[in-house]
Amino acid sequence: MNLDSLYSNLTVKTKAKLVLVVLDGLGDLATKEQHFLTPLEAAKTPNLDALAKISAQGRMIPVAPGITPGSGPGHLGLFGYDPLEFQVGRGVIEALGLGLELKAGDVAARANFCTLDKKGIVTDRRAGRIETSVTEKLCALLSSKIKKIGDTQVIIKPGKGHRFVVIFRGKGLEGPLTDSDPNREGVAIPQSKPVNPKSAKQKKAAKLIADFYKAALPVIAKELPANGFLLRGIAHQPHIPIFEERYALKPACLAVYPMYKGLAQLVGMIKIEGPQTIAEQFERYIAEYDNYDYFFIHYKYTDMYGEDGNFEAKKKAIEEFDAALPILLKKRPDVLAITGDHSTPCAAKGHSWHPQPVLLNSALSGSDKLERFTETGANIGSLGIFESKYLIRLMQANARMFDKFGA
Amino acid sequence: MNLDSLYSNLTVKTKAKLVLVVLDGLGDLATKEQHFLTPLEAAKTPNLDALAKISAQGRMIPVAPGITPGSGPGHLGLFGYDPLEFQVGRGVIEALGLGLELKAGDVAARANFCTLDKKGIVTDRRAGRIETSVTEKLCALLSSKIKKIGDTQVIIKPGKGHRFVVIFRGKGLEGPLTDSDPNREGVAIPQSKPVNPKSAKQKKAAKLIADFYKAALPVIAKELPANGFLLRGIAHQPHIPIFEERYALKPACLAVYPMYKGLAQLVGMIKIEGPQTIAEQFERYIAEYDNYDYFFIHYKYTDMYGEDGNFEAKKKAIEEFDAALPILLKKRPDVLAITGDHSTPCAAKGHSWHPQPVLLNSALSGSDKLERFTETGANIGSLGIFESKYLIRLMQANARMFDKFGA
Repeated sequence: MNLDSLYSNLTVKTKAKLVLVVLDGLGDLATKEQHFLTPLEAAKTPNLDALAKISAQGRMIPVAPGITPGSGPGHLGLFGYDPLEFQVGRGVIEALGLGLELKAGDVAARANFCTLDKKGIVTDRRAGRIETSVTEKLCALLSSKIKKIGDTQVIIKPGKGHRFVVIFRGKGLEGPLTDSDPNREGVAIPQSKPVNPKSAKQKKAAKLIADFYKAALPVIAKELPANGFLLRGIAHQPHIPIFEERYALKPACLAVYPMYKGLAQLVGMIKIEGPQTIAEQFERYIAEYDNYDYFFIHYKYTDMYGEDGNFEAKKKAIEEFDAALPILLKKRPDVLAITGDHSTPCAAKGHSWHPQPVLLNSALSGSDKLERFTETGANIGSLGIFESKYLIRLMQANARMFDKFGA
Repeated sequence: MNLDSLYSNLTVKTKAKLVLVVLDGLGDLATKEQHFLTPLEAAKTPNLDALAKISAQGRMIPVAPGITPGSGPGHLGLFGYDPLEFQVGRGVIEALGLGLELKAGDVAARANFCTLDKKGIVTDRRAGRIETSVTEKLCALLSSKIKKIGDTQVIIKPGKGHRFVVIFRGKGLEGPLTDSDPNREGVAIPQSKPVNPKSAKQKKAAKLIADFYKAALPVIAKELPANGFLLRGIAHQPHIPIFEERYALKPACLAVYPMYKGLAQLVGMIKIEGPQTIAEQFERYIAEYDNYDYFFIHYKYTDMYGEDGNFEAKKKAIEEFDAALPILLKKRPDVLAITGDHSTPCAAKGHSWHPQPVLLNSALSGSDKLERFTETGANIGSLGIFESKYLIRLMQANARMFDKFGA
């Protein structure tokens, strides 16, 4: 029997409130340089400590052993969707990250301006890394000249530096297509092709992109060094089962950064806009407590400082989170999970594959008798090491949302 | 998505050096008789201790819970091949163990001499456990009389005691076939039959074996007590993806015993010949450092003394390994894994299913803050308990050989 069907068959609706707090990139490594302490271990976290004493802990594998996830797979796993089954193209993630609302059937591509010589050879894949303001001007120019290709709407939105996003909104389109980025200089722009040559929808999308190039290149022909562009990660919004139907939980997203709002939106969460700090996010949770069953609360800074390799700043970000935690606990949810979407070790200066620690608190979580919430403690917690995609199932179980299986 | 494809798609070649050290049968049990210490815990291991402080630990399930592996599945798992997917017949393992080089399409069988009465009934399945020298003489006799059956070459090679190996090298052959060993006395030698009756290649192999019996039995008819023979584990060399292509790592094998060289050869490792002691193996690793990316270094004695139930000798073997370890560490690889292929507890006097401890060291392994490398410590390490087949994926991840998955 399919496991998702089993969960679904056993699910009962309750009045329980579930909260998932994601400290992005929380997991880290103990290294000699930092006296064998992780940022979570080095931080002063009196509120997390108090919670740890009455909670269960464990570690979660985001995708598979050794696989480092991007934010997309990382969060899909936390939302209970197998990241290998539900793959989201980079174009889609980039579009979501820019705050664009994607519709079913949209094909999205990451794009960046490049430099072409007179023969059409790519001489600089990043157009000399032009400034955001230049990209904004060029995207406005392209948008004004190209609104449609045939009956397909074209949406062009600038990102940071030389990057932008193109969305094709029409009928009968599908990704993925191969990149029109040659990944090196000294060659012409390759054509985007269907990844599956038998797909009529991919063929139509490839034709559309070829036509888009024909229309767009003349518009920027004199805009050196940005007289060309490359497309990557050309994909359509995947079909993802709606969160509320799948889990019998009405979900809300309290995130600050567009990417995470976008990922939440992808599974059908409702975005609550406004809060800018973790304290404000927690306050808003209190205010919205009666309106939703499941709150996804996202905190970015642990990941950001991990990417910088800035141990002290990551530690401080955890301490700031801890200081705000009592606001959340004023109205303690029936089930509270605190974790990361992956590890971002300062020593790696980037995402990694190391299983992230997770803390789970409910009336039925039990206590692992650990004094603190740490990576080292999580190693010996009662939850063990498990795949992220099961976290929401454990949260549902702790909310008593599953009937007994079998007599 | 197939996980192997995912790993493959994300793999990037690097200059990292990876070393897998296999202390064969390392894992053991703490028993009252040995004051609740395993050999690894009882041994003095200052060098492993120092390494443990800056490494991650865990335990590995060789095949599946409760399954005791032979050396074949044990090592295939360590090399990253699912031992359930890639099954190597006993005939093949035995042939490799005798140092025979198998070619694609070869069908190999374990054989042993037996005693037949006048009616052809098996009266002793082991021919009174004749000595190796007798077996050698009989194999030479058979080899001199039977070089071919039809157009198929027959290779006969003696093993220890009453055991030998037969290889059929020809076209259009395939295993597996059923044993011609009745597994009990008092009955005649059964015919080998195709396991899959629809396979023409298996049928041809079965016919060949029947013909081989017709030719060979008369040759030894007067050699009592060894006037018959039984065949088991009749199988062909399986198709196994080549290690170097699968992992983008050029692999070398530093093993002393033929079986382990054979298993390494099966996946396409290059055998480095010469070294006889673990110190010599480590010295040779230093000498060959620039020539390969991945070194499989095999140490036999932990298993050997475990099989004997000799706790003191197993402990001493670990101490001798530890004493040699500084040679390896003179040129520390980017990623070092030290583990067993399975447990061989002294209390069991044989292989067992108990997950073996593993130590993983790299710049990104982090530290589990454990003072020693032991079974008990490995239980609470950050690697958790995982299937052996993922070890090489973790090693690759630690070598930064995987791109990020998704955006």
